[in-house]
Amino acid sequence: MADPRFYDNHGPMALADLAGAIGAEVHHSGTATSVHDVSDIHAVRAGELCYVVKRPLIAALAAKPGAVVLTTPAFAPECAALGLSVLQHADPLAAFARAAQTFYPVAGRALGPAGNDRIDPTARLGNNVTVEFGAVIGPQADIGDNTYIAANAVIGRGVCIGRNGFIGPNASVIYALLGDRVIVHGGVRIGSDGFGYASSPAGHAKIPQLGRVIVQDDVEIGANSCIDRGALGDTTIGEGTKIDNLVQIGHNDTIGRRVILVAQVGLSGSVNVGDWAVLGGKVGVADHVDIGPGTRVAAKAGVSRDLAAGQDYAGFPAQPAALWRREVATLRRLTKGQKRRDE
Amino acid sequence: MADPRFYDNHGPMALADLAGAIGAEVHHSGTATSVHDVSDIHAVRAGELCYVVKRPLIAALAAKPGAVVLTTPAFAPECAALGLSVLQHADPLAAFARAAQTFYPVAGRALGPAGNDRIDPTARLGNNVTVEFGAVIGPQADIGDNTYIAANAVIGRGVCIGRNGFIGPNASVIYALLGDRVIVHGGVRIGSDGFGYASSPAGHAKIPQLGRVIVQDDVEIGANSCIDRGALGDTTIGEGTKIDNLVQIGHNDTIGRRVILVAQVGLSGSVNVGDWAVLGGKVGVADHVDIGPGTRVAAKAGVSRDLAAGQDYAGFPAQPAALWRREVATLRRLTKGQKRRDE
Amino acid sequence: MADPRFYDNHGPMALADLAGAIGAEVHHSGTATSVHDVSDIHAVRAGELCYVVKRPLIAALAAKPGAVVLTTPAFAPECAALGLSVLQHADPLAAFARAAQTFYPVAGRALGPAGNDRIDPTARLGNNVTVEFGAVIGPQADIGDNTYIAANAVIGRGVCIGRNGFIGPNASVIYALLGDRVIVHGGVRIGSDGFGYASSPAGHAKIPQLGRVIVQDDVEIGANSCIDRGALGDTTIGEGTKIDNLVQIGHNDTIGRRVILVAQVGLSGSVNVGDWAVLGGKVGVADHVDIGPGTRVAAKAGVSRDLAAGQDYAGFPAQPAALWRREVATLRRLTKGQKRRDE
Repeated sequence: MADPRFYDNHGPMALADLAGAIGAEVHHSGTATSVHDVSDIHAVRAGELCYVVKRPLIAALAAKPGAVVLTTPAFAPECAALGLSVLQHADPLAAFARAAQTFYPVAGRALGPAGNDRIDPTARLGNNVTVEFGAVIGPQADIGDNTYIAANAVIGRGVCIGRNGFIGPNASVIYALLGDRVIVHGGVRIGSDGFGYASSPAGHAKIPQLGRVIVQDDVEIGANSCIDRGALGDTTIGEGTKIDNLVQIGHNDTIGRRVILVAQVGLSGSVNVGDWAVLGGKVGVADHVDIGPGTRVAAKAGVSRDLAAGQDYAGFPAQPAALWRREVATLRRLTKGQKRRDE
Repeated sequence: MADPRFYDNHGPMALADLAGAIGAEVHHSGTATSVHDVSDIHAVRAGELCYVVKRPLIAALAAKPGAVVLTTPAFAPECAALGLSVLQHADPLAAFARAAQTFYPVAGRALGPAGNDRIDPTARLGNNVTVEFGAVIGPQADIGDNTYIAANAVIGRGVCIGRNGFIGPNASVIYALLGDRVIVHGGVRIGSDGFGYASSPAGHAKIPQLGRVIVQDDVEIGANSCIDRGALGDTTIGEGTKIDNLVQIGHNDTIGRRVILVAQVGLSGSVNVGDWAVLGGKVGVADHVDIGPGTRVAAKAGVSRDLAAGQDYAGFPAQPAALWRREVATLRRLTKGQKRRDE
Repeated sequence: MADPRFYDNHGPMALADLAGAIGAEVHHSGTATSVHDVSDIHAVRAGELCYVVKRPLIAALAAKPGAVVLTTPAFAPECAALGLSVLQHADPLAAFARAAQTFYPVAGRALGPAGNDRIDPTARLGNNVTVEFGAVIGPQADIGDNTYIAANAVIGRGVCIGRNGFIGPNASVIYALLGDRVIVHGGVRIGSDGFGYASSPAGHAKIPQLGRVIVQDDVEIGANSCIDRGALGDTTIGEGTKIDNLVQIGHNDTIGRRVILVAQVGLSGSVNVGDWAVLGGKVGVADHVDIGPGTRVAAKAGVSRDLAAGQDYAGFPAQPAALWRREVATLRRLTKGQKRRDE
């Protein structure tokens, strides 16, 4: 499933060999005798490996003939009953991380030109593209007409950038596809690894990050902001969205269209932000949270649950803004009363 | 008004042509028949275009003979009565953004050397200047004696840096004038675009950022911090001010002398911070807020209103520090009481 | 005490000359007639200068024969009674800053290759090291086998990086020693100056930062994060610790093994974080705070006091997480009651 423009797949492997390589056991061999890629449970196709550790998700595998699933011994019979090939392991996530590592041993490397050219000879540059001194363009990158790459920026292998774009000084864009008229300011990091580990008493094992970043037309991204690529699948920034400086966007986030993210906002992974939402400065959002379209979150709020569409929220934990203001007033009033009582 | 060291003005334009280009209507032609620049209402001079959307500001235009003003149809007669040339448009800010775009179509680009030299031949380097490998110096830049530019830093067109300065690795300094003994650590972004848009149901239209950053003597700026340039006019950092890492300073902020900004502070646009103020780590400040000289704001506070001089503040919303501590104590006490009541 | 791989010591100086250079007075000449370095009170050795401004620390000097101590006139007799050489000054920290400046006048500069090579000829590269285009390697740097240096990264003078490492695009690593399998993402700043000043009515005098950053094996550091080097001594990141994007780590912090620091965490100076601790996104920690091993701090918390081992904390000021949740519930309940009373 990993995009071959960015990732070199070292597969396929026989099912038994893969099981051996990751320390898993073949519970049921199903119809797939070899595995050629890793995927997530929603996108998995025949011959691809996914993992499942939550029972309610198992049902989704019924529609995935030929998939290979890695799960716990407890869930293995249920998966096998669907006719799938099943590998079992006490810690499926850790084993999956090893499988991803086996297929993609150098994910996250090999960004720039292999040779001594700063613009790789296989890169394609449109008409009137400017590449300032020190900017580096990797192999198979594709830069649209009139796009301007400022000094010492780095464009990684396979990256596509549309027309009339601007990439600022010292920015880096890797594992990403950018639309037209995208403005990326200095020091921005698009496409770095997401923060994903399989933790156990032995430590935090890295889960290879094999996704991309998709940035639609007319997006602007402020200086030194970071947008991590998806773990599997994509991190997406919708059309016309504007992102201020020093913002953190986690892996597999989906940001809608014409969203405003003010400086120092931080989004954990797998967050959804609806169209036209506005997040004030320093807002933090927990993982897997949905923020409804048109909703406005006041500066410094901390969002740990889904927020409805078209509302104003504030505070930590975030709540309706009017309620937060009343809480602030209540505490102030009670504190004054407390003082009088103490006197 | 935009500094010609940094911006190429594509004007002048006949008043009627400009109106046509931005979709505005000539309400009154006044004395100015052509427009040669854009400006803000406070600095506007004869032949320059400004906009006004708040009635109380109109009076300021009485002292601006020859100015051209862009406003709503409702305010147009009042402006015309002052003898000014008046353009009207339902959304003056959006129309002004288009005018700025017309005069300065490539603002924010054209930073580095145009040719194949990494130090532009028109740049002026003082005595004993060091430029490490990979550092790029743009046209007309001026670097003072004994200043050290570390590897892969980028100094943009027209930038002036004083004597005995240090620019760290991978930092970028654009649209800026720096004094003597200024220390800029690695990855700092000075002079990126401020976060300014004219929003409408059609989306967020970018307002070209045409100002500068002024950094006075003996300032130090920590790694990966960002200081945006003014929208029109300057962002200013006063003498001897020290800024820690990952700090965000918005467009048109005015930071006084010997101010301390601890790591991850974030200031919105048009903030004023008085001399000798101290803002603790992660403090956030809303736009157009004034913080008095000598005032200290505790870490993590959120400042949404003006703060008096010489006081201690804390909490969110920020309040006198002693009051905040009492509120924390009150809530703790009430919570314990609540528990007893529940038991 | 400063590591000569990174710092050129311009000493030694006669005791009287040093006193003159920094505006101090020789209170007692002791056994040391010359000074060859600066140090902190815990590591100071014969012939090295340290300072002390807190009475309880003076006792530690009893075990430091031959040390030279800079202190206030009030404490000078007590120090002299230990047989030490003693310099006195009304502001010992400011005088110490000048002494450090005297010994190390260019600390923080001279990072990259002196000549026209982007890989300094004195750098040592192991087998199968990749250095992408635009990456710069300073003198005496040492890069282990199979390590990958991405485009436009900067490796400073004397830096050691172990085997199988990855340094991302536009990252800079200076004044640092890195273990094996360390992953440093794009735009990371390792080894910048800590935020240290001797403040007086004349301003904030810079205290030269003369330490290092030690990063143990299997550490991963997210994009655009900053780890400042020690002021004197080291900032240390323990084995297997994982750091997300845009994190700030102050000078002389000691981060244990297998710690998790989520995005936008900010640690002041001299913080200790125990093994296996987890700090959620945007957590802030005040200087000199100890966080016990295995402790978990919820996102957005502000930690101003030591935290015990193995506990869950939340809120600001940070407190046991269960208590914080009850406080949130209490305030919500009281606010609802308040409303009823108002109606």
